[in-house]
Amino acid sequence: MAVDISVQVSVLGLGEMGRALAEALVKAGHGTTVWNRTPGRADGLVAQGAHAVGTVGEAVRAGDLVIVCLLDHASVHEVLDPVVGELAGRTLINLTTTSPAQARESAEWAARAGIAYLDGGIMARPQMIGGPGASILYSGSGEVFDTYRELLDLWGTSVYFGEDAGLACLYDLALLSGMYVMFAGFLHGVAMVTPAGVTARQFAALATPFLAAMTGGFEGFAEVVDGGDYTVEGQQSLFFSQLGDLVDASSDQGIGTEVIGMVEALIQRQIEAGHGEEGFARIIESIRQPG
Amino acid sequence: MAVDISVQVSVLGLGEMGRALAEALVKAGHGTTVWNRTPGRADGLVAQGAHAVGTVGEAVRAGDLVIVCLLDHASVHEVLDPVVGELAGRTLINLTTTSPAQARESAEWAARAGIAYLDGGIMARPQMIGGPGASILYSGSGEVFDTYRELLDLWGTSVYFGEDAGLACLYDLALLSGMYVMFAGFLHGVAMVTPAGVTARQFAALATPFLAAMTGGFEGFAEVVDGGDYTVEGQQSLFFSQLGDLVDASSDQGIGTEVIGMVEALIQRQIEAGHGEEGFARIIESIRQPG
Repeated sequence: MAVDISVQVSVLGLGEMGRALAEALVKAGHGTTVWNRTPGRADGLVAQGAHAVGTVGEAVRAGDLVIVCLLDHASVHEVLDPVVGELAGRTLINLTTTSPAQARESAEWAARAGIAYLDGGIMARPQMIGGPGASILYSGSGEVFDTYRELLDLWGTSVYFGEDAGLACLYDLALLSGMYVMFAGFLHGVAMVTPAGVTARQFAALATPFLAAMTGGFEGFAEVVDGGDYTVEGQQSLFFSQLGDLVDASSDQGIGTEVIGMVEALIQRQIEAGHGEEGFARIIESIRQPG
Repeated sequence: MAVDISVQVSVLGLGEMGRALAEALVKAGHGTTVWNRTPGRADGLVAQGAHAVGTVGEAVRAGDLVIVCLLDHASVHEVLDPVVGELAGRTLINLTTTSPAQARESAEWAARAGIAYLDGGIMARPQMIGGPGASILYSGSGEVFDTYRELLDLWGTSVYFGEDAGLACLYDLALLSGMYVMFAGFLHGVAMVTPAGVTARQFAALATPFLAAMTGGFEGFAEVVDGGDYTVEGQQSLFFSQLGDLVDASSDQGIGTEVIGMVEALIQRQIEAGHGEEGFARIIESIRQPG
């Protein structure tokens, strides 16, 4: 099905990400109006066919759909509060990185003003927008998501989580947390092997496929967590997973142990609470109820 | 090329892993002698064609190649010290899980006794042995590795790291460290989203492909670490990667922050040391020189 390019779109905020979002719309043939607080950021987009305006009001009036991708939650209110009357009856998609609580606040603000509101969290770097690797997570108005689905898909894979506007941000932050922790674990491994004369690249050549394959274990952990019974057959027990040898080997290499020691502490707390025979997924209870 | 099944192999230690290793040898047609401290563990293997013996000495004399897969490093010495004279001139492959220092000690012990020695770290569960997902990491005698390569490949993908017998264990422990830390990061993500009514399985459905894809970033980090210059163009800076929003969102969900807080602390120490403009891989210096 062809994209309905009759939709007029305005993009507020032309940082690297905002420019990438606007560019994808222009390329698809949408009438695209752009605005940025500091001028000059729109030049490349104008050359491609976008229409640059000098005020937020002009931008809002030009768009059926208003996309904001600003610095932070405070910027969203600074930019949009003065034009709230003009936004009434229009649709707002907020792709600014915020907390779940801030996204919910924006959704309530929009509801009071009669603005249809969808919140999004972008799981991609700007250069990935429009390519196969980009995902954008959405929550808030399901009607907005359904109406503009084809347009949203111009940017990447669109995933909708539900009417709670904070959910997309929450997923976004939870996925990013997993990513940063994984990166720290990889770099801990690098720090372990490099004193033995191994290069980081040699280690990455093994660690990349190994850790990618080990993500296959997440589903099993998730089933156990959802079931709430950690005494599942065939799961490696916490007694078996005590990480003293990994901590000792790190110390022997002369490096710090706070990365692997963090996991050891989560395991030990569950063993001390009498759950040593239960499966590894049990450590989520150490995270849920910190010691 | 066909496997040279004239090689007589003895397997000492018939835990779940030892039995899996012996079974792959028997199936390939090798004359396989097996021994275990407690009797009865060999029954299934004998039914398949293995020869069970009652003493370590008999087992050693029956094999050109002696494989040990015991409980720990102390067990290796308890079992092998009494038969060291009979091992002289033979080849020993030690697949017992030990530390790098213990593997080096075993290699020195073997060298003094005139035993050719190869150490291995098994990156697989017993049921994976002989299948496509199993890898075994080796270090120690390159001559042993080359001579028995085809036999080793019966168990899984064989990777050789060099003459330092401790290297395979070190890699093994470094990869496992990365894995356990990644698992903790995934479970932190689960703990973040489940209070909002999302199931762990729903989160796993997104987190599995996302984190698998993000392992693609390891090589870039490794290049920066090997180069030693963290001020690389195009890398996200530590200022940009401050994780306060992830820590706050975790607290807002009512869960502990020690998992994500660990990464935040590694970042903050580098920022405080004046490296905020440098790339994320810089956090390895917080691991190498703990605060």
